[in-house]
Amino acid sequence: MIELMKRRRSIRQYKQEDVPEILLEELLEVAMKASNTGNMQLYSVVVTRDAENKKRLAPAHFNQPMVTAAPVVLTFCADANRFVKWADCRKAKAGFDNLQTFIASTIDAMLFAEAFLEAAEEKGLGGCFLGTTTYNADQIIEVLKLPRLVVPIVTLTLGYPTEPLPSESERLPLAAIMHKECYKDYTPQSIDAFYKEKETLEVNKEFVRINNKETLAQVFTDIRYTKENCEHFSEVLMHVLKQQGFIS
Amino acid sequence: MIELMKRRRSIRQYKQEDVPEILLEELLEVAMKASNTGNMQLYSVVVTRDAENKKRLAPAHFNQPMVTAAPVVLTFCADANRFVKWADCRKAKAGFDNLQTFIASTIDAMLFAEAFLEAAEEKGLGGCFLGTTTYNADQIIEVLKLPRLVVPIVTLTLGYPTEPLPSESERLPLAAIMHKECYKDYTPQSIDAFYKEKETLEVNKEFVRINNKETLAQVFTDIRYTKENCEHFSEVLMHVLKQQGFIS
Repeated sequence: MIELMKRRRSIRQYKQEDVPEILLEELLEVAMKASNTGNMQLYSVVVTRDAENKKRLAPAHFNQPMVTAAPVVLTFCADANRFVKWADCRKAKAGFDNLQTFIASTIDAMLFAEAFLEAAEEKGLGGCFLGTTTYNADQIIEVLKLPRLVVPIVTLTLGYPTEPLPSESERLPLAAIMHKECYKDYTPQSIDAFYKEKETLEVNKEFVRINNKETLAQVFTDIRYTKENCEHFSEVLMHVLKQQGFIS
Repeated sequence: MIELMKRRRSIRQYKQEDVPEILLEELLEVAMKASNTGNMQLYSVVVTRDAENKKRLAPAHFNQPMVTAAPVVLTFCADANRFVKWADCRKAKAGFDNLQTFIASTIDAMLFAEAFLEAAEEKGLGGCFLGTTTYNADQIIEVLKLPRLVVPIVTLTLGYPTEPLPSESERLPLAAIMHKECYKDYTPQSIDAFYKEKETLEVNKEFVRINNKETLAQVFTDIRYTKENCEHFSEVLMHVLKQQGFIS
C-alpha cells in the first residue's frame, strides 16, 4: 500500500466502465472506520451516478470535465444534522449550530474522504478531489438538497484510470513542510532552497511561459487563485455557513 | 491494506519504544503524495518529541495522557504562510488572507494527516487524532510559535501500540451516512433504525448508566459536547482565525 501511495497521482480520465455498487459500498464501509470526532460521525456522502444529476453539479465545479465523465461523483459533506435530529428524538438538545462544530464536521468529512480514496486506489480505482466544492457550496446545496447544518466540503470524481497514467506532480522537499519542535519561519534563503527544484522543473517553466508570466508564483496569484476570486468565494462561503446554521 | 483498515482503531497506549526519525520522515514523504489544493501544499506539520515540549502542549489537549505518553506528537496545521512568503520573494502578491484559503488549507492538512496515519498503520504504528486542537488553538499557536496564516487543525499522537489492542468502536450502518443522488433527510423512523444497533450495545448502555443519563444522546449533549463549551470554543476559534489573518 505504501508503494502504491508513493506513486499516487490524481486521475482525471476514466474508462467507460462502471464502479460496481457493491464495491463502492464496501469501500465506504472501510472508510467509515477512519477516526472521527467522539464517534459522532459528523459527515455524510452524496453519491451521484445519474447523468442528469452530474450535469446539474458540473457548473458548480466550473464545468471541469471529470464531473460528467466520471462514473461516480462523491460529495463529502460536513454534517451535524443527523446528530442533532438523533438528539431531538432522544430528549437531548444539541448545541451544534456553531463554528467549532463546523470545523469538527469538516475534519470528520476529510478523514473519511481520504480514507475512502486510499481504499479505492488499492482496488485499482483512481480519483480527483475538486477544491471547487467550497467555492460554489451554495449551488451544490441546492442541487443535492442539503438541509441546515450540512455543508459540502470536497468532491471526488472516481473511476477506473485510462492508460497511460498522468505523470506524478512534484512536491516540495519534506524539510519545507516539517518543523521540529517549533515552527521555524521562512526566510528568503530558505524559500529559495525549498522552491528551487519546483521552479526549475521544465513542466513548471513551460507553465510560466504559456501564462505569459515572469515567475511561477505569479501564475498562482494572478491567474489561478486571485485575491479577487478568493475574496468573492470567501463571502459566498461565509453566507453559506450562516444560511446552513453554523455561524450566527 | 484494506484488511488493516477494516480492523482499525485509535491507539492511545504506546510501548516504550521510539519511532525512528528515518521512518517518520519516510511516512511524511509518502503522505505528501496525497492530493492538495493546486499543488500549493497549504499545510505544515510540527513534530514534537521533546518531553518538555509535550508537557507544554498537554494542557491545550486537556491533559489527555496520550500527549505526554506518545513518543511522537504531530500537530498538522493549515499553512498559507509559506506560500505567501514564496510569492513575496517572487514579485507576486498572494491574496490569501481569507476564509476560502483557510478552508482549502484545512482540507490540505487533513488529506495529508489521514494519508500519514494510513501509511504509519501499515508500518505497525498506531495513533489517536485529538479534536482538542481547534478548541485551544490559541495555546498551541503560542507553544509551537505559529506565525500569521498558520492555524493548528488536528493533532496526532503516535507510537507502537501496546497489547492487547483496544476494542474497535462501532459505526453507524452505511445507509445512515450515504445518500443516493440527493440528500434524504432523517425522520424519527429512520433515526430509530440507524441508531438502534449503537444504542443497544452493552458498552453504550453502560456509558449511559455511569453518566447517570436517560439516553446515549444526552451523554454527548449534556456532558461531552455541551452547547456552552461549543459556543465558548467557537469564540476562541473565531478570535484565532482573525488573529492569524484568515478572517478580517
